[in-house]
Amino acid sequence: MPSKLIFGHISSVPIGTTFNLYKEMNEVGLHRSTMGGISGSGRTGADSIVISGGYEDDKDMGNVIIYTGQGGRNDSGKHVRDQELTRGNLALAISQKEGLPLRVIRGKDPKNKFAPAQGYRYDGLYRVESHWHEIGKSGFRVWRYRLEKIEDSSVLLENNFSTISPSEGNPHPERKSITTQRIVRDTKCSKELKKHYDYQCQVCNIRITTASGPYAEAAHIRPLGAPHNGPDTSDNILCLCPNHHVMFDLGAFSIQDDLKLIGIDGELLVKKGHEIAITHLKYHRDHYLDRIKAP
Amino acid sequence: MPSKLIFGHISSVPIGTTFNLYKEMNEVGLHRSTMGGISGSGRTGADSIVISGGYEDDKDMGNVIIYTGQGGRNDSGKHVRDQELTRGNLALAISQKEGLPLRVIRGKDPKNKFAPAQGYRYDGLYRVESHWHEIGKSGFRVWRYRLEKIEDSSVLLENNFSTISPSEGNPHPERKSITTQRIVRDTKCSKELKKHYDYQCQVCNIRITTASGPYAEAAHIRPLGAPHNGPDTSDNILCLCPNHHVMFDLGAFSIQDDLKLIGIDGELLVKKGHEIAITHLKYHRDHYLDRIKAP
Repeated sequence: MPSKLIFGHISSVPIGTTFNLYKEMNEVGLHRSTMGGISGSGRTGADSIVISGGYEDDKDMGNVIIYTGQGGRNDSGKHVRDQELTRGNLALAISQKEGLPLRVIRGKDPKNKFAPAQGYRYDGLYRVESHWHEIGKSGFRVWRYRLEKIEDSSVLLENNFSTISPSEGNPHPERKSITTQRIVRDTKCSKELKKHYDYQCQVCNIRITTASGPYAEAAHIRPLGAPHNGPDTSDNILCLCPNHHVMFDLGAFSIQDDLKLIGIDGELLVKKGHEIAITHLKYHRDHYLDRIKAP
Repeated sequence: MPSKLIFGHISSVPIGTTFNLYKEMNEVGLHRSTMGGISGSGRTGADSIVISGGYEDDKDMGNVIIYTGQGGRNDSGKHVRDQELTRGNLALAISQKEGLPLRVIRGKDPKNKFAPAQGYRYDGLYRVESHWHEIGKSGFRVWRYRLEKIEDSSVLLENNFSTISPSEGNPHPERKSITTQRIVRDTKCSKELKKHYDYQCQVCNIRITTASGPYAEAAHIRPLGAPHNGPDTSDNILCLCPNHHVMFDLGAFSIQDDLKLIGIDGELLVKKGHEIAITHLKYHRDHYLDRIKAP
């Protein structure tokens, strides 16, 4: 087992390689954990995961995977306590924050059409798009992660610009490894809301100006996409500066129904004509708010 | 001609459609300008451009295009004054800031292997990745833009999550239009620098904390990739909060050789062990610093 985590492809293991045993994946350095589904460290991030249908809440949509964290279960697999944002769960959250590529291995699972018929198969790199917590069917808290496939076509074919790729046999050895740390998405509705606030942050009231005009970001309170499926409507969007957008998405603060902030001091600025749905605020508090002391 | 700018594909014009005349592209709404290479507005952004070899500095690498702005030339096409960040040039800068998709049309150009043999061809959507200014061969300032192709595979096949696609004949009418406003890239070297600063912003000294650890972004002073080809070395990287990263990339401030800030008050925090190359600082000042009063 290598002593240092390797993020990205393992040069000797092409996508699609299959294995019969966990142990074999461990020996080639594909998945360093001999037991758990998450390989990684609560200090530097997660380098690989195995999806094998262990959690009924996992949802595999191919290029998008909703993955459940580890822990909180007793020896017979029954949920008996909350999952904590530690060890493998923290590792996956760090991978999101730092933009680290995650190797995804699918294990046999008759209920999952994307799973191999037997054994384990290396299915390439994903990025951790988001993480949140929720109360599982057993009544205890679980951590969940939305993983999105990193497409090979995202490789930019220039000398010193590429995503992480197998180092062995690389025809362009001068390439550097580049990953994506953060993607800010924009929608039609978010453009209108930013204009409504004249690009002023609803948390700190800062207005970033540049020669090409003011800059702000639109934050969906209840996120778009599975499994949240928040709407792209102005009652679900905030106009934030990039700093408060990052903090909101990573749960460093949330918002009460009376618009007071939780986690940081202050109150949300809301301009006339912008109605915020309190059900979406509750969704953010219930799933994103960091209830653990920040390190 | 439609009265409102349409960003993204035009439903009646598939990628690869060819035209003989400018006027024909105008009639179908593909390119609204009847003369200029840039269609758009200095208020809302650019919706399409034509590349046809008019500027010798343009560099077409297929999925990446370095495009030169408009203006500054006399009737015989000779550069006689600086280009300004107004009209089409400002429109392209706004497209970058807002993450708007840009239709790219290539015109006949024997010197460009990506150009059609005759007429004009619609080649799909690009995003404006960055813009800067430089002194052209004639001694006057030109504005330049790095355009990156938006790959179709970036479409996420989920109900309410997709990039902008032709609306006509869309089999999933419930899909929303989503574009990318901002992509933060990360490199091996940038991770180390962020740790060196313990994730503290070198401009405002803020340290954003979350349950999954502190968050910061690495900003390359002289950008990676063509045509800048800055190195991924610590003497070319700053550790910044997202707000100051956006401002630095959009030229709202720059840094003197003595580390005093230009455009905003203050001085860069530099910790022992981090040597910054002043040639890279000069590159940023010469190409990115906003020398125009911000609106």
